[in-house]
Amino acid sequence: MNGAEQLMRTLADNGVTACFANPGTTEMQLVAALDTERRIRPILGLFEGVATGAADGFARMSEAPAATILHLGPGLANGLANLHNARRAHSPIVNLVGDHATWHRDADAPLTSDIESLAGPMSVWVHTTARAEDLAADGAAAVTASMEPPGGPATLIIPQDTAWSDVDAAALSSPSEPGPRALVSPHHVDDVARLLREQGASAVVVLGSAALRRDGLLAASRVAAATGCRVVTQGMPSRAERGGGLPSFPSVPYFPEQAVESFADATLMVVAGTTDPVSFFGYPGQPSHPRPDSCDLVSLAGPEEDAAHALDALASALDAPASVRTDVELPPLPHGSAFGAGELGAALAHLQPEGAVVVDESITSGMGYSIHAVAAPAHDVLHLTGGAIGQGLPVAVGAAVACPDRRVIALQADGSGMYTLQALWTMARESLDVTVVVLANRNYRILQYELLRAGVAEPGPGAMGLTDLGRPELDWVSLAAGMGVDARRATTSDQFVEALRLSFATAGPTLIEAVI
Amino acid sequence: MNGAEQLMRTLADNGVTACFANPGTTEMQLVAALDTERRIRPILGLFEGVATGAADGFARMSEAPAATILHLGPGLANGLANLHNARRAHSPIVNLVGDHATWHRDADAPLTSDIESLAGPMSVWVHTTARAEDLAADGAAAVTASMEPPGGPATLIIPQDTAWSDVDAAALSSPSEPGPRALVSPHHVDDVARLLREQGASAVVVLGSAALRRDGLLAASRVAAATGCRVVTQGMPSRAERGGGLPSFPSVPYFPEQAVESFADATLMVVAGTTDPVSFFGYPGQPSHPRPDSCDLVSLAGPEEDAAHALDALASALDAPASVRTDVELPPLPHGSAFGAGELGAALAHLQPEGAVVVDESITSGMGYSIHAVAAPAHDVLHLTGGAIGQGLPVAVGAAVACPDRRVIALQADGSGMYTLQALWTMARESLDVTVVVLANRNYRILQYELLRAGVAEPGPGAMGLTDLGRPELDWVSLAAGMGVDARRATTSDQFVEALRLSFATAGPTLIEAVI
Repeated sequence: MNGAEQLMRTLADNGVTACFANPGTTEMQLVAALDTERRIRPILGLFEGVATGAADGFARMSEAPAATILHLGPGLANGLANLHNARRAHSPIVNLVGDHATWHRDADAPLTSDIESLAGPMSVWVHTTARAEDLAADGAAAVTASMEPPGGPATLIIPQDTAWSDVDAAALSSPSEPGPRALVSPHHVDDVARLLREQGASAVVVLGSAALRRDGLLAASRVAAATGCRVVTQGMPSRAERGGGLPSFPSVPYFPEQAVESFADATLMVVAGTTDPVSFFGYPGQPSHPRPDSCDLVSLAGPEEDAAHALDALASALDAPASVRTDVELPPLPHGSAFGAGELGAALAHLQPEGAVVVDESITSGMGYSIHAVAAPAHDVLHLTGGAIGQGLPVAVGAAVACPDRRVIALQADGSGMYTLQALWTMARESLDVTVVVLANRNYRILQYELLRAGVAEPGPGAMGLTDLGRPELDWVSLAAGMGVDARRATTSDQFVEALRLSFATAGPTLIEAVI
Repeated sequence: MNGAEQLMRTLADNGVTACFANPGTTEMQLVAALDTERRIRPILGLFEGVATGAADGFARMSEAPAATILHLGPGLANGLANLHNARRAHSPIVNLVGDHATWHRDADAPLTSDIESLAGPMSVWVHTTARAEDLAADGAAAVTASMEPPGGPATLIIPQDTAWSDVDAAALSSPSEPGPRALVSPHHVDDVARLLREQGASAVVVLGSAALRRDGLLAASRVAAATGCRVVTQGMPSRAERGGGLPSFPSVPYFPEQAVESFADATLMVVAGTTDPVSFFGYPGQPSHPRPDSCDLVSLAGPEEDAAHALDALASALDAPASVRTDVELPPLPHGSAFGAGELGAALAHLQPEGAVVVDESITSGMGYSIHAVAAPAHDVLHLTGGAIGQGLPVAVGAAVACPDRRVIALQADGSGMYTLQALWTMARESLDVTVVVLANRNYRILQYELLRAGVAEPGPGAMGLTDLGRPELDWVSLAAGMGVDARRATTSDQFVEALRLSFATAGPTLIEAVI
């Protein structure tokens, strides 16, 4: 048994069941070892950002660690943007990054680079294995680090000789136990309950990712009913449950001036599963944090704590009503030739099957869906928490691998979809039940808004050329066909409804280019 | 005038004429400033690896610095693999990486990361601008750093407030003068001449990139004629001239056991424009450097010195014959239905126009062309010096922007082409005269060789699944059509010849999927 084989056995013992890989020469022993450890499913991505994004999607839906295999510094670099997103989403991922053999590193071969320097910013843990006999234990430590609340990517750098050298099979490390999320103390809950009672409607509760699951949402609605406080959600949570009668709350506005206005009258902000809200970008004359200085900040539970449990305890401490009914209605199913973001959103909310996983990288075009989704059947929604575009299609791959019995819907802006379009090929190869809806507005619309906000009312040819996606227009039907994914274009509501129905009735991936 | 506008004016004063950009919100002032400085041509890439690879191609062919615009840490990360290649190729590039406003960085907004840690491994210079009034001078310093021999990527991190704040237009920094390549001393040349005379046929001269231009090749052939020494070239030089009667030398073999054998009898190795050859990867039982311990190493000129001038001086010191005639013949133009790597290479070498720029990322499938290319009309060839695949199509973009009067031929393996296929769109938008030849063997063939070398004679389903590109097969004709590039498939020599002739006769990009 070599180091790579012992590593894979150890990872499987520690709950790793999927490995999203884009390997090279230095990872050949890791690749071969996957044939000796069949508990781990190997899945090829044709670009590293597909592999890391898929690992993120898998981890968000399975809440178990996903592994990746990446090729030295440049291979890791190609996967870093989606590891950035995974770090912000607290997704447990174990990156296995091959490196030159220990004795070959000083020769400064062409592919040599400082992998630790690259890995650090997007990892919660980075380690380089020194000897073959350490590799399996390092792998177990990586799993533990990735799962340590609140979780995140752990990067293990594996010099190739530690993978190819023989090890003593008896020395397998025993599985490690990552710690559970910490519970918030009853005293702290009582303190927060007292504050909320005192401040009533002047208080606002901000829910973050862990509080946005079913139990957290129900508890938060009870807290609101008992105290009159407002409840809002963080801007782009990593995973939230929605629809099927679950309570729904507005999110903190994206632009700081609107967020500032929304909190202007608040005297108390309680955060649960998240931290003090922060503006996505800094703008002249706007603060980094929209919360006014006069508003006290109290953390009920941080991202590393069990926020849903804390909210439930808070509702009990407040003697809140047992349940709060939420009743919303869908607009009619659109038909005819009119087709914009509103019709698209209404149609999708109408037709999406029970238990879907919606991967939302719709940027500016998804608003029409968001307002209707609360009335849709129960589903999970995965957002662009880290802000690095190009996560949608890869995350859809991973979510579909994690949840083979659920339909995955990737709501994908066209501009950001182009960053990691290679994910379509993996969907086809693995026959994943993914419905990709490309929202084709053929612009980086968000950047055109931002240019306007920067005072450029009439962009010149340079600025226009860097923000529009026409000349030539992207043809997503051809792109999908090139990677083996069935696709069609919809330019009317009728066409879109028909395409959605067909996709939901068909196993495997389909792509709908929605020209809106 | 704001900091961004002053920066762009300064970059233009310093010889920057092209900016390959994939901007985001934090770069909006840089984007707008391109409309105030028309000496810089803005070119959009739909993925950052396209922008950085294109900058590399532009720099290799123009020998002037190219600028990029990248969006914070994740945007830089997406461009790092091709910056790795650019660093290994010593290409002068100035990366303009936007960051949050200085006062917003501590808020740890979603897109915050340690950009300097990411940039360091793939940059020769990294700096974060502190104040708007420093930005232009920092830009000039970045140009100087990128051009300092041997050259490489310089990364300037630009907090957005330093771009949007007003500056005193009178304070523009004056253009900086990068140093020229140093000349090697006549005494050193005489010493090397003496050694070469002494060792004769037991000596080997290894030529690196700067020595692989016309003057260096002619001088090296004279040195060989005068002393009987062998001449070889580094494995994958960043830019070499070839064909049109120029002398041609074999390259250092890729696999170390073959390289070791090729140097086994050498007693003296003289390197010019490069350093001691190093094995691409480490293998069990093979050394990092193929040069035997008994072979002395002497550097005639390092990568930072003028190697062509040194070789010319060496030839003079050796009283070498004035010129050495090289005479090679092309095989006949292939026809009929037989079509493999050999026919493809012969056809291309026959038909390529005078003065082409060949971007070679053919990996295993390009051997058939390499052996014939020396008999082709004079051309430049750009190789994968840094080893990070996904450079071919982007480098072709940049080479075509730099050389609008020359046909660019991208010889592209299918597996590596998928990493940055978005480059096809930029070729279409900018109407670049690029002929893309995709060598479709539908496997990561190099990895299948490497598995075999690692002792895996019969890969299991896991290893096979991670190295074959079938199921589904990629359809490059559809992929190209999806990005506005005319494409056709060739499965016979006749079809390939016809497609090549058509492409060379047609302005703008075309793609030929050569199924071999």
